[in-house]
This record gives sequence, C-alpha cells and structure tokens, in this order.
Amino acid sequence: MRRLPIEALTPEAFAPFGEVISPDAAREVWQINAGTAQRFHALALAESAGEGGRIGISLFRAEPRALPIAITMLERHPLGSQAFVPLHARPWLVVVAASPEAAPRAFLARDGAGVNFRRGTWHHPLLALEATGDFLVVDRIGPGDNCEEAALAQPWLLALEQAPEPIHDTANFR
Amino acid sequence: MRRLPIEALTPEAFAPFGEVISPDAAREVWQINAGTAQRFHALALAESAGEGGRIGISLFRAEPRALPIAITMLERHPLGSQAFVPLHARPWLVVVAASPEAAPRAFLARDGAGVNFRRGTWHHPLLALEATGDFLVVDRIGPGDNCEEAALAQPWLLALEQAPEPIHDTANFR
Repeated sequence: MRRLPIEALTPEAFAPFGEVISPDAAREVWQINAGTAQRFHALALAESAGEGGRIGISLFRAEPRALPIAITMLERHPLGSQAFVPLHARPWLVVVAASPEAAPRAFLARDGAGVNFRRGTWHHPLLALEATGDFLVVDRIGPGDNCEEAALAQPWLLALEQAPEPIHDTANFR
Repeated sequence: MRRLPIEALTPEAFAPFGEVISPDAAREVWQINAGTAQRFHALALAESAGEGGRIGISLFRAEPRALPIAITMLERHPLGSQAFVPLHARPWLVVVAASPEAAPRAFLARDGAGVNFRRGTWHHPLLALEATGDFLVVDRIGPGDNCEEAALAQPWLLALEQAPEPIHDTANFR
C-alpha cells in the first residue's frame, strides 16, 4: 500500500489547507485584562456560506486509532470551515488533500495544537491516538448539504515509521 | 465587603447568561465517523451583530488568581457572544450579572467545562485558578466598539468558603 509521510504540523506547512490553532502560531499577541492575560488573537476565522448558517461550538469525543491506519476516504464541507482543538495534549493526526485524486498530506499535531480546515478542504475524519479524546469543534450549523465524501481509488497507509519523531512520548498535559 | 456565593455551574443555572460547553450539557449527541466518534452537537451558537464582524478563534493565556478576589468591575460585548473553553481541567470561576447594578452571580466551572456568554452579557474578565491556564476563545472579530466596562459602586468578594464544594481537589486531566 502506498505510504504517506507524516510531517510536523507547522503553520507554514499547513497554510494551503487552513490554520494551526496554538499559541506558537499567533501573529498578534495582546496583553489584556490589566496585564493578567495574553490574547493570541484571531488564530483562525470561521467561515459560513449559504443561507441560514451559524457558527456553532460542539464537542467531538473520538476513540483512538492505532497505527498503521489505512486512509480510504476523505470528506469536505463546502459550506463552512471546521476547527478541531484537542482538550488534551496527546498527539493526533491530521490528513488533508488538495483533491481526492491528489496525494494526501499527513501532519502530526501535538502539545495541544488544533487546526482549522478552510471551507471546502478535503480531510480525513478525526484521528485521535493513544486514548479517547475530546476535541472542541467550531463549524457551520445550518441548512444545506455540508458534507461530501469521496472514496479513494487506492488507499494510503499511515505508519508509525513515517513519523518525523517518536509519537508516543508526549504525555505532557498543560 | 459584600460576599458572593459561589454556585455550581449547571446549564440550568447559567441559562440566563448563556450556555455551558461540556458533554454533560448536550441536548443532541450523534454517532459520527462510522461510529468511532460522538458529536455533542451545537453546545452553543456564536453571535455577531453589526457590519463586518466575523467569528474568530483565539487563545487566552491567563495568570491564576488567588481567592479571595474582589469583584470591582464588569464588562460586556454588545456586538457578539464570547465563549471560553479551558484547555485543561483545573477549576475556574465565571462571574456574570444582569446589570452592573444587580448582584452578580459566581459559578465554579470544573472538569473542563466552558461557557458561552450571550451577546451583551455582563461578565468579569477571565478568572483562572491554581496555575496559568490556556482557554480557547470564540468571539466576534471586526469593526465597532465591542467592549463596555462598568466600575461597580461597591465591590463584591469571592471567598473560598463560599464555594459549594472544595475547589482544590480537581487535578484530573482528561
């Protein structure tokens, strides 16, 4: 099976698909609340197209996957962006593609980093690792068909030895 | 100084001010991703009023406060809702009021629970406890004056002995 390299998740590498949601990715940081807090401002902006859409806040509770993982399908949301932010600091995997025909790219998110998929970005459903994990989700809620799925002509394999660094050493909670 | 009782944060008690963001508060739970995940759907909907507003995703990093805390001011955002979701499971405090003249209400959020302040809700700036903590923030980003502050005629005191249960026993990360 064709193997996908697993890349480190950086704002630059992920830019074609959306934004990384982490303090490190901030372009603007403000002191607020009389200096007792910092605002890492506008890490991502939510998108909603079509009539009647609202931006909602939901939670996903995802069972962990064990590597190797076969990537056999992708989905996209034509009417809105979708952000996932882990409510834990375990690593997880983000798989995106320019199209169902293109080679996907896989990113290892760690230390609590989240992502925002730009509207219409092809991506794999949530890939939690190690333990059941909760993720905050910010996406469009409203009428219209906002999910397309595509089966891949040939699967891609995500394997541990493709990772840029050891995955299973990140039990640091913040 | 006048003392505020500290209430447990429940969706019902918080309903006049907004929504609680936690799996327990969900009204709709769906199986998704071929049964490998649950979606706790639409725990809150973001609001943006006025021209040119977008819903953004930011992070706040807040220094912890030590009880007792004097509540001397409140603020509100007339153009949009504002959600705070801790990226940790330490307790934190939510202070809201019907108006700057009304007695505020204080809620103890724990086990990772977040809140969404409805547009225009008077609230105190973020009150982290125990350690510096990151919070995901979903609020309106755009033109217009979206912050009003009000000094209180007399302060209110938030004290440990007002809490509904011991605060400092919740080091359980999820």
